[in-house]
Amino acid sequence: MSFQAQILTLYPEMFPGPLGVSLAGRAMAEGKWACDPIHIRDFATDKHRTVDDTPAGGGAGMVLRADIVGLAIDHALDKRPDLPVIAMTPRGAPITQGRVRELAAGPGATILCGRFEGFDERIFDARPVEQISMGDIILSGGEMGALMLLDACIRLLPGVMGAASSGDDESFESGLLEYPHYTRPALWEGRAIPEVLRSGDHAKIAAWRKQRAEDDTRLRRPDLWERHIGVRDQSPSGAQRESKD
Amino acid sequence: MSFQAQILTLYPEMFPGPLGVSLAGRAMAEGKWACDPIHIRDFATDKHRTVDDTPAGGGAGMVLRADIVGLAIDHALDKRPDLPVIAMTPRGAPITQGRVRELAAGPGATILCGRFEGFDERIFDARPVEQISMGDIILSGGEMGALMLLDACIRLLPGVMGAASSGDDESFESGLLEYPHYTRPALWEGRAIPEVLRSGDHAKIAAWRKQRAEDDTRLRRPDLWERHIGVRDQSPSGAQRESKD
Repeated sequence: MSFQAQILTLYPEMFPGPLGVSLAGRAMAEGKWACDPIHIRDFATDKHRTVDDTPAGGGAGMVLRADIVGLAIDHALDKRPDLPVIAMTPRGAPITQGRVRELAAGPGATILCGRFEGFDERIFDARPVEQISMGDIILSGGEMGALMLLDACIRLLPGVMGAASSGDDESFESGLLEYPHYTRPALWEGRAIPEVLRSGDHAKIAAWRKQRAEDDTRLRRPDLWERHIGVRDQSPSGAQRESKD
Repeated sequence: MSFQAQILTLYPEMFPGPLGVSLAGRAMAEGKWACDPIHIRDFATDKHRTVDDTPAGGGAGMVLRADIVGLAIDHALDKRPDLPVIAMTPRGAPITQGRVRELAAGPGATILCGRFEGFDERIFDARPVEQISMGDIILSGGEMGALMLLDACIRLLPGVMGAASSGDDESFESGLLEYPHYTRPALWEGRAIPEVLRSGDHAKIAAWRKQRAEDDTRLRRPDLWERHIGVRDQSPSGAQRESKD
C-alpha cells in the first residue's frame, strides 16, 4: 500500500511542489506515495470563509480558530483514520530520524500546517494531534516543514533509494554524524584524497571512517556525542552488540 | 537593496516553488527578495555533464565532485562576492534563529544544495563555505532545507510581516517557546479560553504568558530551558536587564 500524505493547509497549491520532481517525484509517479492537500478554508462556516481571529488577551497577528481547524482534522480523520495527525509547530517536540523512520514504516501522515501566530491551543486538548517542531527557527507557516518531513519519509519508502543505498551509514542513523566523503579526482587544487581511502584495505578504511565519525561528532556536535556516549554506557545489550561488530 | 538568494542545485526547477506564493511570494513580487537558482550541472566538464562519482574507499551512493562544485561556487562568488556561501549538510552546525536574523539583515545568501551521499569534503577546505544543518534528519537533498531557511529569512525582511507583527514574541526569540494562543469562540466543545486572557488586565495577561512560556519550555524542551537559565545566570548585564523589564 502506498504512503499517504494528507496535508491540511491554507496553501494547497504548495503541494507536491518540489516533491513532484527528483527522487520524490519519481516515487510519486510510481505510486509509492500520494499527496492529498486539503484546504483548511473549505471548513470555514461564514460567507467570508474566515479561518482566523485576533488573539485572546491581545497581541499582534492572528490565531487559527479551533472550531475551523477541528472540522478540518475531523474530515482528515474520517478519510484516513489510520494516519497519525501531526501539527507543525515550534512548540512541538523536535523531529528525530527515529520518528521519521516510524512514520515511513506506517501508512502515511496527516500534516497540519499553521500560519499566522499559530493554532488555538484547545485543538491539542480536543483532538489526537502530535506536535512536532522541524527546528528552532520560525517559519512563515508549517508548509516548508511539511515538505521537509515528507522528503525525509519518502526517501525511506521501500524501493525509493534502491537496495544499494540503505541509508544505514547516514548521519544520525548511528547517533553520530556521517564520516566525510571523497571522490575523484584523486588530486584537486593540490589536495589529495586521504591515503587510507585509496589503500584498498577494507578494515583500515572502516576504522578510519569510524574514527572520523566519532571525532567530527565530538567536535561539531557535543550534544549528539554526549547522548551517544550515554546510550552506549547505559545499554544493557551494549557488550553483546560490541562483540558482534 | 533586495535580499538575493543564489541557490546552487541540481534541481533549479524547485525554486522558488512554494516560496512563489503566500507571504514570500508577495515579497518577491514587491522586489523585497529575488531568487537565482544556478544549475550545478552547467559546470560539468564532460559531454555527459557528470557531477558525481563513486566514494573513495567504497560504499553505496555517489559523491558530488569537488572540482565541479568548486567551479559552481566560484561562479556564484563572481556574481555576488558579498553573499555568504552556505552548504546544506547534516554534518553542519545546527541552524539557529540568531543565524537566521543575521542572514536576513545581510545582502542575501548563496545556498549550496547537496544530493546523493554529499559533497567531496575538500570543497570545505578549499572554499569559504559555512556548513549548516537544518535538523537531525536525513533528506534526499539540500533543497527542502534551502526552502525552509529562505522562508525563515524572508519573513524577517523589512516590510514583509508588517509593523504590527515584529516577531519578538515568537518561540526562540527570547530563548523560550512561545506561550499558547487562543481566539474566538470563547467556548468550543465545552472548552473555555483561560479566564485571565478575557480579564482585560494587561499586567496579569503578561505575567500569565511569561509563566506559560517558562513552564512549557521547561516541560517540553529541557535543553532550551537549561540554556536559558545558563544565559540568564552568566550574563553580566542580567541584573540590569531584569530591572528594565
